[in-house]
Amino acid sequence: MAPEPVILINAFEVAEGHDEAFLEGWERTRAFLSTQPGYLSTRLHRSLVPDAEFRFVNIARWESVDAFRAGDLTAGVPGRTRPARGPPSLYTVVRDDSTAGTP
Amino acid sequence: MAPEPVILINAFEVAEGHDEAFLEGWERTRAFLSTQPGYLSTRLHRSLVPDAEFRFVNIARWESVDAFRAGDLTAGVPGRTRPARGPPSLYTVVRDDSTAGTP
Repeated sequence: MAPEPVILINAFEVAEGHDEAFLEGWERTRAFLSTQPGYLSTRLHRSLVPDAEFRFVNIARWESVDAFRAGDLTAGVPGRTRPARGPPSLYTVVRDDSTAGTP
Repeated sequence: MAPEPVILINAFEVAEGHDEAFLEGWERTRAFLSTQPGYLSTRLHRSLVPDAEFRFVNIARWESVDAFRAGDLTAGVPGRTRPARGPPSLYTVVRDDSTAGTP
């Protein structure tokens, strides 16, 4: 059986009016990471209000903690975007009703 | 065309050793919210390290902001769990490669 994917959650503080610059850096990072072994997918969320503490929240899936930790994955990214709050946090899904039928 | 779902992200500070009590409260809240119009699904994430700032992160999907905001949705939940950092933040997905084929 395949191991449970690990979920990486990363919140970014982005000043109002700087969305496009952030998105460009994020795209470069994603393009690089998506070539790495163990990368599964990512979703980037933008706040519906412009002045949220965390303007963007990135939620990525990796095959395993080991795959994610195998080296400094973002070292090769030109113009890399640094998270405002240190490294991303690693999570596992403990409850999920998104695959169940909804009444 | 259906409107884009709104994503509700909620981070919880939970002291070490209190996971089970938190999960019980979370289950009650989820059971109630899942009966409300516009609720789509939720995923609860637990940190892989016990001392993370945010031990749990809940990510829920609602049909629309209006559906989510239609009243004080958690008022009817017995023993409701209050978020440690104020109300949840509302997001929309702006990038998503999780539905694309991976090479």
